[in-house]
Order: sequence, then C-alpha cells, then structure tokens
Amino acid sequence: MAVNLPAPDPGSLHPVAGVELGFAEAGIRKANRRDLMLMRLAPGTVVAGVFTRNGFAAAPVQVCRRHLAAGDSFRALLVNAGNANCGTGEQGMRAALASCDLVARALGAAAGEVLPFSTGVILEHLPVDRIEVALPACVASLNPAHWAEAASAIMTTDTVPKGRSVRTPIDGRAVTVTGIAKGVGMLQPDMATMLAFIATDARVARPVLDILVREVADRSFNRVTVDGDTSTNDSFVLIATGCVEAPAIDAAAGPAYEALRAAVLEVAQPLAQAIARDGEGATKFITVEVGGAASDDEALRVARSIANSPLVKTAFFASDPNLGRLLMAIGNAGVEGLDASRVGLWLGDVLVIERGGRSATYREEDGARVMAPAEITVRVDLGRGDAATTVWTCDYSYEYVKINAEYRT
Amino acid sequence: MAVNLPAPDPGSLHPVAGVELGFAEAGIRKANRRDLMLMRLAPGTVVAGVFTRNGFAAAPVQVCRRHLAAGDSFRALLVNAGNANCGTGEQGMRAALASCDLVARALGAAAGEVLPFSTGVILEHLPVDRIEVALPACVASLNPAHWAEAASAIMTTDTVPKGRSVRTPIDGRAVTVTGIAKGVGMLQPDMATMLAFIATDARVARPVLDILVREVADRSFNRVTVDGDTSTNDSFVLIATGCVEAPAIDAAAGPAYEALRAAVLEVAQPLAQAIARDGEGATKFITVEVGGAASDDEALRVARSIANSPLVKTAFFASDPNLGRLLMAIGNAGVEGLDASRVGLWLGDVLVIERGGRSATYREEDGARVMAPAEITVRVDLGRGDAATTVWTCDYSYEYVKINAEYRT
Repeated sequence: MAVNLPAPDPGSLHPVAGVELGFAEAGIRKANRRDLMLMRLAPGTVVAGVFTRNGFAAAPVQVCRRHLAAGDSFRALLVNAGNANCGTGEQGMRAALASCDLVARALGAAAGEVLPFSTGVILEHLPVDRIEVALPACVASLNPAHWAEAASAIMTTDTVPKGRSVRTPIDGRAVTVTGIAKGVGMLQPDMATMLAFIATDARVARPVLDILVREVADRSFNRVTVDGDTSTNDSFVLIATGCVEAPAIDAAAGPAYEALRAAVLEVAQPLAQAIARDGEGATKFITVEVGGAASDDEALRVARSIANSPLVKTAFFASDPNLGRLLMAIGNAGVEGLDASRVGLWLGDVLVIERGGRSATYREEDGARVMAPAEITVRVDLGRGDAATTVWTCDYSYEYVKINAEYRT
Repeated sequence: MAVNLPAPDPGSLHPVAGVELGFAEAGIRKANRRDLMLMRLAPGTVVAGVFTRNGFAAAPVQVCRRHLAAGDSFRALLVNAGNANCGTGEQGMRAALASCDLVARALGAAAGEVLPFSTGVILEHLPVDRIEVALPACVASLNPAHWAEAASAIMTTDTVPKGRSVRTPIDGRAVTVTGIAKGVGMLQPDMATMLAFIATDARVARPVLDILVREVADRSFNRVTVDGDTSTNDSFVLIATGCVEAPAIDAAAGPAYEALRAAVLEVAQPLAQAIARDGEGATKFITVEVGGAASDDEALRVARSIANSPLVKTAFFASDPNLGRLLMAIGNAGVEGLDASRVGLWLGDVLVIERGGRSATYREEDGARVMAPAEITVRVDLGRGDAATTVWTCDYSYEYVKINAEYRT
C-alpha cells in the first residue's frame, strides 16, 4: 500500500566508518524472521536522542535516557522487534538492563555504553532468554555493509524497509550520513513505534549533537503524523563515530555545522516522509504547508489540525476536494483571534479559499484534478505573520480500519 | 447503524407551554424532505446558548451571538438543514439576517427576537428565496404537539430522530422540559453539525439561564465526541417560556434551581448520548469514566484522549481488548508528572491494568467477554486526586470511512 516508496537499493546505503551492523532471528514474537539488530560503534562514538513524550514511556526508553545522561560515549545499540517492553513495570526495567549486560559482555564494553530499543506489542514481558540465545549470531554477522539488512530486521508492520544515505564534503573531507527507520506512523503504538537511527562518521562534540538531533527532529520526524497517536517507544537517535579525520564540530553554528545539518536533514526528511508513505492503509501522501502564521507553534497547530482530522483524511482517501472540512480543521486549531477573512488555501496550484470563503475563481473540476494523484499538497496562508512549517501525512482508508481492527487477530 | 437508539415515541415528547413548532419542505438541498423548522415562542421567553469555538463560526452562529447579547427575550427560532451558511462571508451574514427578517414579518416580531440556525454543506450560499417560499407552510403548521416532526425536520445524516422529555414538580408546580437534537457527531462538520434545542415552561431569569446552559452543556453535549472534530455550526440552546405560574428562578442555587437542572440534564444527557449512539458508522456505544484526577481539566483530557484515539476506536470496533492502546492513549493526554505505577484501568467490571501494567488477575477471555456487547464502559483511576468526569463516544468502523469518503458523491 505504500505511496511511491520503493525499498532502498542496498548499494545506495553507504557504510559509515565506525559502524557495524548485525542481525539474527530471535523468535521474540514470530519464528523465522529477523527481529534482532545489533549496531556496534567505534570507541569514542557520541550519541544523542529524542524520545517519546508519552507518559507510559517504555522501559528501554527509560534506560536510554538514563544511559545517555550518565555516559560520554557509546559502543552499541540493540534493537528488538515484536515486543515493546512497555507497561511491564520493574520486571521490564530489569529485562532492558539485562539486554544491555548481555551486549556489553559480548562486545567487551560496559553496560552503560549500550542503548536498548524495543518495538512491538505492549504489556507483554520481553523474552530476554531468546535475546541471549540469538546474540552470538548477531555478533557474528556484524558488518559495515549490513545497513539494508538492519533496516529489515527492525520492521514490524512496515511494508517497505526504510533507509537513506548521503555523502557530502565538510571541511574538505568526505563525510557519510546513513540512516534507517521503521514505523508506519510516527505516532502509533503496538507494532507501529517509530524508530530511526542515523549515523555519521563526522566528529561532533556531544553538546552539539544534542542540539543537532533536536533541530533535525523538528524538521523531519516531528513533522510527520499518521493518526495523532504517540507511541510509548518512539525514538530517534543520532550517532557520530568521529572516524573521519577532521576537526571536531564543536559549535552549533558555522559552515561545518550547517553542512552537517543539511546532510543529516537530507537523510532524515525522506525517512520521515517514508513513514507517512508507508502509513497504515495509506493510498495518498499529503504535504501540508502552513504559512503566514504569527508563530512557529501556531503554524504547527494548524498543520497538525489538518493532517490529523479524520474527516480531512477520509476526504483525501476519496480524492474529494471537500473544502468545508479543510476550513473546519483550520478553525479547530485553537488559533487565538483568527481572522477568517484573511485565510487563503490552495490545493496543489489551485486557489480554493480566499478571504475565508470559496474563491470566485475556483472550479470543482480543478479541485478534483489536483486531488486525483497519489501525492497532494495543501497550502494555507493564515495572513497573520511570517512563521511557516510543513507536515507530512497520509489518508485514512478502509484498510486503516481493517489493519487496526484486525491487528491482534 | 445506531447503537440501541430507538426513535422516540411521539407521545412521549410533552408539549411545553409557550412553544409551537412548524415545519416545511423548502428544498434547500434536496427535494421532498422536511428541511425547515420554525419554533414560535410565547412573549417574554428567555433563551441562552452555547456555540462552537471553531474559528470559522458560521454566519447563523454569529447572528445568534449578536441577538442573544443585545436582546432580553425572543419570539422564534428558525432552523434549516442542508446548508450550513458557513464560509460564506458578508453574503452569508446578509442571508442569515434576511431569514430573521422574514420570520419577524411573518410572526409580527422584531428581527432581533429571531435566532437562526443552519446545518448542512459548508461554503455554499444559503438559498433565502426558498426559505421565503416555504415559510408560510411552516407558520401554518405551528402546533405545540409537533416536537417529533421538528426532530425529523432538522436531521441531516442522522439515522434516527432524537427527542426526550420529562415532567417534574418544582415549587409544587408541574414543569415540563422537552428537547430535540440532531448530529451524528458532536464534533463533525458538513451535514454533521450538532444542534440541540431544549425548552421548558419554567420561569427562569436570563442570567440564571446563562449559567444553567453552561452547567448542562459541560455534563452532556460537551462530554460526547465522535471524531474530535468540531463543527462550525454546533449550537445548544436552552429556552424558558415562563408559562408556568410559579416564582421565577432567579439564582443559580437552591432547591428549585437544582430541580430544574436535574430535569434539564435528564433530557440533555440522553440526547447527547444519542449523538454518539448514532455516530457515523457506529457499532458500539462507549462510556469513558476517568477518576482519581488532580483536576477536572485533567480528567477530561484523559477521557478525550481515550475517546478520540483512532487506534482505541478501531480496537472497540473489533471487540478487541487491546490494553496497549488504552495505556498509550492515557499516556498521550499530556498529564504533567503522571505516575504510571498508580494508574488502574477497568473494562466493564474487569480489572485489566493495575500499577501501570497488566493486572496479574487479568485473563484475555474476561477482556473479550466485556468487549463483546454493543455497550462498553472503560474506567480509569489516575491515582492523583478526586476529580472525575465521564465522556461518551462510539467506535470507528469501515462504515465511518465509507460515509465520510463517499459523503459528497
């Protein structure tokens, strides 16, 4: 069902110096599928992350936060699919820590240098014994070329593995940025947690990486939505091995920082869009651009109100230029003192709403024309200021209901 | 598709002294259906209302707000179905005011004593000429016994007319409260605007009625949700004709006020629930009770997060006790400092989550048993305080997508 989303050519995913990837079939939820992924990192690798804000953050998310707060550099990431280790209380915390211990022993590292990630069913205990049995195979398969295999091993209800890679010169040296992601909603629970791992061989000071991961998240993964729900396990992690011989980027400004940010965004944005393209039951990929806002927050609220409205999403599924629903969604965003008479809205290149009402030039057949393709852009001008943002989403189809109604059966 | 929602027996809807109802086929959107309703009120009738907070409030809502702010008593309500008169700019305002003029002339009242209401498609101009043609038939059919006909005349995509009536002694006099509503979402646009009109023959001072309408709304219509979207035309109006010979209720406290509030709630709550029972594509009626909250606002946020989550609603459609989604929805409510280990959750009488994890006593077959019926109660204890609230909603079915995808075609 994914919308214009081919699987990445494995050859397009460049190795990142200092990163090796391994995988195994641990049988965590289902037999005979790769569901365990290990990423080994060169000594001195720094890592920064952003995590779910859900009040029921899963045990691995809590362990990641703890390890990232306490540690300077990291040696491994362990990711399992099939079980979220969420809503599992103290036993879940012990399971996440035990997984770190196992990896630490296998790689000769400290447990605090290992970051754990889980995605899958909620409220079931993580079978650490199966991870223990499968870990040697994971270690044996470690290889810098295994990005595509890693992208597959972390999938759950994804229909397409998601990976992206760029090379760019920074300070005269070739720097690589390669990332993988899973999730068929940024914002969905159960098997649909979003996980994204992007690695670079650039040398980046940890405080700078902490800023970079947030700046990138706010222009990529935090701008995609499938159904407005937020998973208990959502995680986006940025890894810098520092294996490229170049001066460290030690300030969140300047040409080197900006070149790196551009390269990471070039990986992160298509990965984020891939999540909406592979959204559960998606038949359309929708870009919502909101401009003329008084603040970034206001722009984002309007964009999300449109992108998350079930009525708007079903209209997109029907390729129906239902202008009333778009107007309603803008009005519901809670923008204080919105002047309806200044609001304009375009579907693709067609002006459909001006001064808060149907444009005099609008013809239904023009609306139908721009709603027909699999990719649609909605552009809103609030007429209040200069702030703008872009959000990506997908439509709601029969298939969305089917997938989520029948998911556990 | 409505869940346990029979049409009201016309004989059960008691006339309210001072209220007459008329109807006509105006052909506003479709021919050969009643789509115009006129309610004539006795001189001295006071009216209070609560209206949509959507930034694109429709022209009739704006006129209602203006007339209610300026006037003391009111002589008529005019309701049309088929056209929302929203997103129609100055022309829409002129159309709403012209409708009031027509009614005022027909009934010998002032235009400011008429309140207009519209529900139907957005962004199309209201055909006032058709209202003008149909109004004499409306006036000719005015009758105190026409509540059931009025309930039908204001329907759009409703599958069942909605009415409710009670009689209760207040200060030794028999007082009647009768109401009608339409809407298959509190919170939906297009044809799905919620309109509710409740009339009583009690004598109530206008400032008291203004308080009463809000108190009742917060325990009825503001506690129902179908999909989280808010219509541009939602209106709930409380009418007190004062035709019962009794002392006026002139304070929002005391036995007479409380007896009246109880009677109005006894009408308003089933009408509000009827909206969820008749929710688009509904197969389940779901009651979400949240207790142990630190504040009313917090309780409401958690209840709405559960009631509006597409993932929770599709699980209800599937009769699937998907505990992870319920946990996720609580965690997404944005409750500051939520202690997951204090949260408990019941499905019907079955404890499923305690101390933030799956209850040791929970058995999947018990969950399946309470999820099977058409009516399901979810009860949450946040373990933080004494505030509590209740929200009513319905599930998301294939039919919801079908109705909303195919609505305009």
